[in-house]
Order: sequence, then C-alpha cells, then structure tokens
Amino acid sequence: MASPVVPSSGVLSPLGLDAVRLAPGFWGDRVTLNRDVIIAHCQEWMEREGWIGNFRGTRPRRGREFSDSEIYKLLEAMAWADHPALPELAAVVARAQEDDGYLNTRWSEARYTDLEWGHELYCYGHLIQAGVARLRAHGEDELTGVVRRAADHVCDRFMDTTQTCGHPVVEMALVELYRATGAERYLEMARRFVERRGLPALGDIAFGRAYFQDDVPVRQAQVFRGHAVRALYLACGVVDVAVETGDAELLKAVEAQWERTVARRTHLTGGMGSRHTDESFGEDFELPPDRAYSETCAGIASIMLAHRLLLATGDARYADLAERTMFNVLATSPALDGRSFFYANPLQVRVPAEPSDGVNHAPEGGLRSPWFDVSCCPNNIARTLASLPAYLAAADGEGVRVHHYAPGEIRHDGLVLRVETGYPWSGRVTVHVVEGRAGRISLRVPPWAAGATLSHGGTSRPVGPGYATAEGDWRPGDEIRLDLPLEPRWIFPDRRVDAVRGCAAVERGPLVYCAESEGDDPPLARVAVDPTPPVEHHADGVVELDVAARLTSAAEDAWPYTRDHPRASEEKVSLRLVPYHRWGNRGPATMRVWLPLA
Amino acid sequence: MASPVVPSSGVLSPLGLDAVRLAPGFWGDRVTLNRDVIIAHCQEWMEREGWIGNFRGTRPRRGREFSDSEIYKLLEAMAWADHPALPELAAVVARAQEDDGYLNTRWSEARYTDLEWGHELYCYGHLIQAGVARLRAHGEDELTGVVRRAADHVCDRFMDTTQTCGHPVVEMALVELYRATGAERYLEMARRFVERRGLPALGDIAFGRAYFQDDVPVRQAQVFRGHAVRALYLACGVVDVAVETGDAELLKAVEAQWERTVARRTHLTGGMGSRHTDESFGEDFELPPDRAYSETCAGIASIMLAHRLLLATGDARYADLAERTMFNVLATSPALDGRSFFYANPLQVRVPAEPSDGVNHAPEGGLRSPWFDVSCCPNNIARTLASLPAYLAAADGEGVRVHHYAPGEIRHDGLVLRVETGYPWSGRVTVHVVEGRAGRISLRVPPWAAGATLSHGGTSRPVGPGYATAEGDWRPGDEIRLDLPLEPRWIFPDRRVDAVRGCAAVERGPLVYCAESEGDDPPLARVAVDPTPPVEHHADGVVELDVAARLTSAAEDAWPYTRDHPRASEEKVSLRLVPYHRWGNRGPATMRVWLPLA
Repeated sequence: MASPVVPSSGVLSPLGLDAVRLAPGFWGDRVTLNRDVIIAHCQEWMEREGWIGNFRGTRPRRGREFSDSEIYKLLEAMAWADHPALPELAAVVARAQEDDGYLNTRWSEARYTDLEWGHELYCYGHLIQAGVARLRAHGEDELTGVVRRAADHVCDRFMDTTQTCGHPVVEMALVELYRATGAERYLEMARRFVERRGLPALGDIAFGRAYFQDDVPVRQAQVFRGHAVRALYLACGVVDVAVETGDAELLKAVEAQWERTVARRTHLTGGMGSRHTDESFGEDFELPPDRAYSETCAGIASIMLAHRLLLATGDARYADLAERTMFNVLATSPALDGRSFFYANPLQVRVPAEPSDGVNHAPEGGLRSPWFDVSCCPNNIARTLASLPAYLAAADGEGVRVHHYAPGEIRHDGLVLRVETGYPWSGRVTVHVVEGRAGRISLRVPPWAAGATLSHGGTSRPVGPGYATAEGDWRPGDEIRLDLPLEPRWIFPDRRVDAVRGCAAVERGPLVYCAESEGDDPPLARVAVDPTPPVEHHADGVVELDVAARLTSAAEDAWPYTRDHPRASEEKVSLRLVPYHRWGNRGPATMRVWLPLA
Repeated sequence: MASPVVPSSGVLSPLGLDAVRLAPGFWGDRVTLNRDVIIAHCQEWMEREGWIGNFRGTRPRRGREFSDSEIYKLLEAMAWADHPALPELAAVVARAQEDDGYLNTRWSEARYTDLEWGHELYCYGHLIQAGVARLRAHGEDELTGVVRRAADHVCDRFMDTTQTCGHPVVEMALVELYRATGAERYLEMARRFVERRGLPALGDIAFGRAYFQDDVPVRQAQVFRGHAVRALYLACGVVDVAVETGDAELLKAVEAQWERTVARRTHLTGGMGSRHTDESFGEDFELPPDRAYSETCAGIASIMLAHRLLLATGDARYADLAERTMFNVLATSPALDGRSFFYANPLQVRVPAEPSDGVNHAPEGGLRSPWFDVSCCPNNIARTLASLPAYLAAADGEGVRVHHYAPGEIRHDGLVLRVETGYPWSGRVTVHVVEGRAGRISLRVPPWAAGATLSHGGTSRPVGPGYATAEGDWRPGDEIRLDLPLEPRWIFPDRRVDAVRGCAAVERGPLVYCAESEGDDPPLARVAVDPTPPVEHHADGVVELDVAARLTSAAEDAWPYTRDHPRASEEKVSLRLVPYHRWGNRGPATMRVWLPLA
C-alpha cells in the first residue's frame, strides 16, 4: 500500500495514494504544485549548493554534516510522486555506498565518532523512509537495494551496543521497513533504539540531554521536551514500536505526553517549539508569538505523530490537531508559487519582513526564502505533500473514515466515493457514492463546528465533535452531506499563556487568521480590537475578515514603564484579517495573530 | 585619579576612589564582599579551570578563545581594590608576552586570523583597562609595562589597516590609556577603530553584521542593536572618542541611540538584551520577561555608558538609568554570599530553579552558579564593585554632585562630606559637612520621588526630578537633608511591550520587586493581583511588600485556546513581594516581576 505508515494493527487501517486521489482544491492544488514545482526546486538548489555533488565525490565536501538526509527526503518525495527524476538521483546515491552498506558523505573516514551530533543514523533513517516509499509506490529497484544494505549495516553495527543517534528518525524508519519487508530484525533494532534512549545512551552536551530526549527513558517521560523535531520524530518511532510489539503501556505513555504537550506547549496554529537557541519546546506555557520557533519540520513531525496515534486509537482528537497543523503550519511554509519557504513560523512579526531570493543563513528573518543553510523544511514539505492524500482517510472494520476534507476520490473495498467541497472556504462536504456496498461512512466533525449537520437519505441530523457516521447499503448516486458552520470565532488564551495575555485571535473553520500590514500599513503595534462579529469578504476563492478595531495615536519615545495605565487617543478603524497561511505573499509585511483587546 | 573614566572635558569631572569612600551599607557591604570574597572566588575558579595556567604555558590550552580577558578583568578588579594578589598574577601574565608586545594564549601561532570571532583586540582592551586601573590606583609597575607594550603593538599593527575586532572594548580602553598617559596615538587608534566600524570592517557572519555593530557606521545608527554587551561597550568607546576629540555630532548620535534604546529595548530592571540565541537586543518592544537575557555584563556595560554620558552632559537621566541598573541588575547577579552569580537575569522563572555548585555550561538555567564556561559576568562584577565608589559622585564647576546614595565620605577641593543614609530601604539622605567652603552641593532626585524635599539651614523645600542644589558657605556641622518618599508604586507597561500586557509590577524607591515562591509555593502561574496599595514589612534591614491577590483554581489539561474567556474560581490571598535583587537566595524558587492583573 502506497502510504508512509502501514501498521499491522490498530483501530484504523490506512488508505494509500492508490486509494485516495485528489482533485483541484486547497490540498489538491498544493500536491500538484509540489509535483510540478517544489520537487524540482529542491533538486536544483541541492545541485547548486553541492549537496548532491557530495555523493559524486566532489571535493571539498559541501553543506552541513547532515546534508545527505536532504537528498533522501527529496528521494522520498520523488518516490511518492512517482517522479521521473528518481532513478538518476538514486543512482548517484548508490555509487557512494560502501561495500558493507555504510553510506555517508561526511563521516566515511571517521564512522560513528560523533553520535551526539554526527547525524549518521538520522541520515539512514531518511534514506530508509525513501526506500520504503519506493518499495510501496513502485517496487524493488536500485534505491531499495541500497536501503536494504544500509539497514542491514545499521543492524549489524548497532544491535548489540548501547548506542543511538543524537537525532531520532531511524526508529520509525526501521519499523516501517519491517512493515514493508517483514524482516523482524528491523523492528528489533528500532525497539532497542527506543528502549536504550534515556538510560542514557549518549554523551552529555551543553544544551543538556533533554535536547535529544536522552534525559529519561521514553516510558517515564511526562511531556515532549527538548528539540521539537527530535522529540516528535522519536515519538513517531515509539508509537510504531508500541503498535508492532503490542506494547499498550508504551503507547499510553506517548498518548499522555502528547496530551500534556498539546495543552501546554503548542501554539494556536498547532506549531510546536518556542525557543530559537536550541529549537526546543521550552517550558509549559512558554509560547511567545514573536519568538515562536514553530519550525515547519516540527509541524510536519506533529502531523506524522498525530496520524500514527489516530490509526492506533481512532480518536478524532489526533485528527483535529493534525488538521490545525496542516492548514496553519504545513500550508504556511511554502509560498503560493512553491519557490520559497518559511523555516520558523512565528505568530507575530513587528518589523516589515522582506522577501529573500537567496540562501538564508539563519532559520529565521525576513519572509520565505528559496533555500537555507540547513534546508530540512523545503524537502520535508516536498515529501509530506507528495504523500498527503494518504493522511486524509482511513478504513475501519465497517467502512471508510474521512478525517480531512478535500475534493477527490476515495476507494476502499468496493466503495468508491467522490468528495466535493470548497473546504476550508466553504463548510459543505458532499460525498457522492460512485460504487457502493453496505457499510459505514464516517466523517470527522471538528470540535469548533457547533451546529454541524449530517444529511443523507432525505434526513438531516445534528452531529457533534468526533466522527459522524452514516450507515447504509450504499448505491451509486447516494449522497451524504456534512455541513460544518464556518462562522468566524474569537479565541481567547488560557491565562497561563503569559505572552498573549489580553489578546484574542480569530479562527474560521480550521484556519487561524492574522492581521497583515503592507509595509507597516496599518501599524499593527497601534491596533487594538473589539471582539465583535467579523465581517466576511469572499474574493478569489479566499475568505478574508474585517474586525472592528481602534488605532491608537503614536507615542513619543520615553521610559515605557509608568505609574499610570498608558492612555492614548483612539481612532475607530476596520482591520482586515487574512488566513495565516497566506501571509507574506504580497511583499514586505508585518503580521500578528494575537490581537490586543481594546 | 583612581577612576575608570577620567575625561579631559565634560560638564562633570569624576571623583575617584581616593575621593569617595564607602561605609557599611547597601553598596559598601558589597564592595567589601567583593574585596574579601568575590575576587578570590574568581581567581580560584580560573586556576581550577586552567585559564591562568594558559599563561604559564600549560598545555593543552583550556577555556574559550577569549578566556585571557577574564584574567584581565580580575586584574582590573585587583588594581582598583589594591589587592595583594595582583603582582604575582601580573607576573604570570607578563611571562606570556612576546617580544613585540603580542600577548594572547590562544592565537600566538595564528595571529589575527579570525578578527570576527578571535577576540584578540577584545583581550587587549581588558588588559589595557587593567593597566589603566593599576596606573591610576598604584603607579607604574610590571603590569603597566606589559600594557604599554601591548597597546603599542596594537597601534603598530592596526593603525594603517581597515580592520577591527568582532567584540568592541579596545576603543574605550585605548582612550583611557591616552587619558592616563597622554600618548596621542592611543586616542588616534581608538578613533580609527570607531570610524572604520560599519564601513564594514569585518567579514559577514551567520548572525549578520548587526551582531557586532558592523552593519552601519556608528554615526548613522539609530539604536543599539545586535549583541548587547558588544553594542554597549562600543558606545562607551564612541563617547570617549567624541569627548576627547570634541566631536559633538558623534556624542549626539550616541545620545539619540541611547534614548531610543531606553524607550524601546530596555527591561524594567534596566537590563538590556532580549534574545538568547545571539545575546542581542532583539527588536523594539521585544521584551519577554521569561526569556529576557538581560546579561549581567550588559547591565554593567549600560552603567559604564550612562556614567560616561552623565559626565559629558550632566543630564540626570543617565544617572537615573544607572541607578535602576545598579540596584536591579548589578546587585542581582551575585548571591548574598558572593560565591555564585546570575549570568542572565530574567524577569520570570516558571519552573522552580535549583541552586548550582559547579560550572554552568550555559549562561542560563537554575539559580546562580559559581562559575560558567564563559565566565565574563563574575569577573565583570568584581571589577565593577571594586571601582563602584567612583561612579557615585562627581564635581561640577561649583562643587559636588552626588548621583547615588550610600553611607560614606566624599572629599573634593576643600569640601569633606559625610553621607548618612539607609538607602534604598529608607529615603532619608543626610549630608554632614565635615570640612567646608563656599560652593554648591547637588543631590540627585530620582524621577519616581514625587514629594521629595531638601532641607538645610533651617528651611525645607520641595524638589523635583534632576539635581536639587544647595548653595552656601559650608561650615563643619552644617547638614543637608534629602527626603525621598519611598511609597511602593504600581507600574504599568507601554501598550507596545506585548509580552507583559495585562500585568503590573511594583517598585519602591530604586528597587524593582518580584513575587518569589519557595519551591512552587505559592504557585505563581495561578496568581493575579489587585493593584491596591502594598503593605510594607521591615525585617532584617530589608523591606518586603504584601499585595492583594487572587489565587485561581488549578486548570485541567486541555487545548488552551477557547471561545470563552477562561474562568476559574478565585481565592483571595496576600502575595509577598521581595526586592528583585534578593530573589533566589533561599533555595529552589519560581519568580515573576510582572504580575497579571485580576
């Protein structure tokens, strides 16, 4: 099955790219943009930067110590997209593999001498994920041979050690290779990598062992912590190991960590990670909008984790968070033209950020950039969009569950469903039965959709959060309609989220909105809002919102802490809000999601 | 004159350590603690860590590339304190100097190959400051010889280049050596270092050239930016060059940068620097309390700069900020026992921070630490406390100006004044004339001291912010009394300081207060305050304050962003506030300066 995650058990079974096909629409357009633009963009930049040349033996070697992994992420994207450039790029990679399966353009002369920072197993992890994708989407070829030899090398080298890698990802990759090939040693290797972490398995570092989740064993951890991408990739592997080994206690541990993280360490957008210094979660309720790191890759990792937990448990909460993150992190990173990307995804930008047309040497600053010194995010976008349809629906014992709404077709076990919707701009989702049988069709109702109704067979009924189900002996021409009310809503933060006290934000459906200036117009530092009902503007297929606001007069420069509440004259204005994922596509801009209350 | 800053012109003339002597009291106790404990503590740790051994040629070399500068800061402290350990330590340093004056234990084999990060000129800067201190407090000796040779080497090597150092400090050091020796080439070298910066003079780095103030020429800059210590040390050197060359335009440029920085980039404590990643100011109004970097050294640098601007202009605003920073950054860093230090000085700590008894490998985390991998702050505390009396008073054409209040004696030109005060706990400052003459005695009235009165010669009058002056033909036994009302006051932030919206803080006199938990009692995440008048508690010479507060009930873990304002039951409680500089001296604690309003 052409899906990145194919567990052998769980409440839900995935539906792969062969079963879910997208038509034009919010996600379908992005999947097409990815195949037509983003994949080639990534390949071109990695040629230009010399990262592909490293595999050809070009010296001096270029790029960071983990740059091999970027080529592997792109190979995974190409595999899911059945991209014609894959065989040639895979052949370049294959030529760099050593006889014993070792493959790394940086560490060949000093294998495994720096497990804390070397990223060798991390690179294998992404290589293996590319191989699994190729195996499932195409079948055996040169790339899958490379991957099997590399995975065997990893097992030979690490099975009977106490070592692991400073950057997790190999765990979930090995489980998936086990699922794809049936070779149990890959599962056992993954299990050992998971269990030895935190004993500890790595040396101490200046950031502290929590940075790479080696501070406590994964079963004892209470919350995701340290480097956000590392923490979430590790959690994916832990869920995979738990599912395949039937370890319910281990699964419960991750669920509890997820629950606390979502309650205390997640931005409104679903983004995770608050600190720039070590790209880490930070502490509970440390959620600054301006310095939100919210790395694109952490958002993707959170979607990957939520998908695994959803398949394992069937609990719609995981799909709820995945949807929030898909629309407000995954969709935010790439520019509308697919040629530049956000690495960090802050919720507030005070100084007009400028477009960039070269390599951004930092993960932040300015608007989207075509490329970065560390360019995980563009390649991660590419592989995620290439496999996105596999995240949208699943099968349960009775039929099909649709988690995420996009126009297209879903096939499963005699059912062929055509989904029509203008989601997320419109809240109507119509499922047409093209081929039918008796069974259950379940449609997720997000928690914000108060007043949602499900209509079929001439009746209509209110449905609440979770999965709304329609049972029937479905025939071609049957129709099921879900109506999700999309009234814009004001959102207020928990009082413990210090950084946005006294503010509110606006959401509509799954979308978080923001105020965006052109240049510094309007000056967002001087705006305060009245949380009255926003007014919708529908234009060019996008819904923008106007909210009532006041513009305070500009203050003089003076000591900013005074005995009196600052007062200033105020002018009533209307403030235009745009979907957060669209900000920064129109030139220099400031932005804020959280709006001070008047 | 035994003062770190002795300009040849300016509205005020400094009074040195020979003219200002402290008796026991808030600052006198700390100066004594420094001489008796902190200086030896620093020397012991630098022996233990091998940084002094580097000068003896012990290999492998230990410590960071700039560790030489730490020994120089300590030598400066020893020079001001006339400490008996100086000659022996200076002799160790002297033996490492090369024939042409070059002196650096890290770069001897690769001189000046990395001006961006090598810190060679930075090390010379601190060496020269130590030499100036020795020259002024003691006279010529082995150390001053080393310093002259090193300074001559710097001039020989850099006078006719376009180069400078990634970390400023050599500029102000050279000007002071010029002032101490009269050798004009040191001033010319400093002037050139100042003028070539920003042309640019350095290579680009990942943080961007603003990090080391090489983005624009200093005359064109609008605000302090980039690495806070670098920016403030540079500004000190710029003021010094401007004063000695009579460059009014250059002085005005720094004054304008200072004014904007104070209005937009300064924490309530006077602390500067908001970002951990690059230890930088961050953007205007980016002032997070939890992630405030507010490095101790940046606070010291700000005091150094304010002192220079005060001497040049006589404007009390500079003394106002210096006082705020002295009481709330300088006094906060060292523990009450002088054996551990804060490097960063955040205004909020959410998770109970633990004491540390070893080397802290990060500049943050936990309570004060005895030492750090980068241990600039303890040595900077040592040299600053050793020279502190020189910051407290100055002379103008008519007599003496007292900027900062501490019990002790001030001598100048026939006037001998004995100051008695319990400041900052009490607001009464009594100046007794011990030896007199006709002249003016000026006492600074801080801007918060509404209702202040000045009494002498049987009369009393209200005095406003700035310098209150008393003219007379002073005779022994005469007395001048300044009464500064110290009612605790609630302080509210400018609406643009996003991170503390909806909060207030409490100040009393020059002190910022904070809530401090023992362990997590009371749980500060659940506290909200009513800004009613605080109640004072005087105990053990310290004033603590009780404020009316509410303790909200503990919330369940759930998605923290909701359609309704979060509501919780509230219990009325009294919340104890302690002076910010004293927090963290009683074991594991959380802390917050900015208190959410109920």
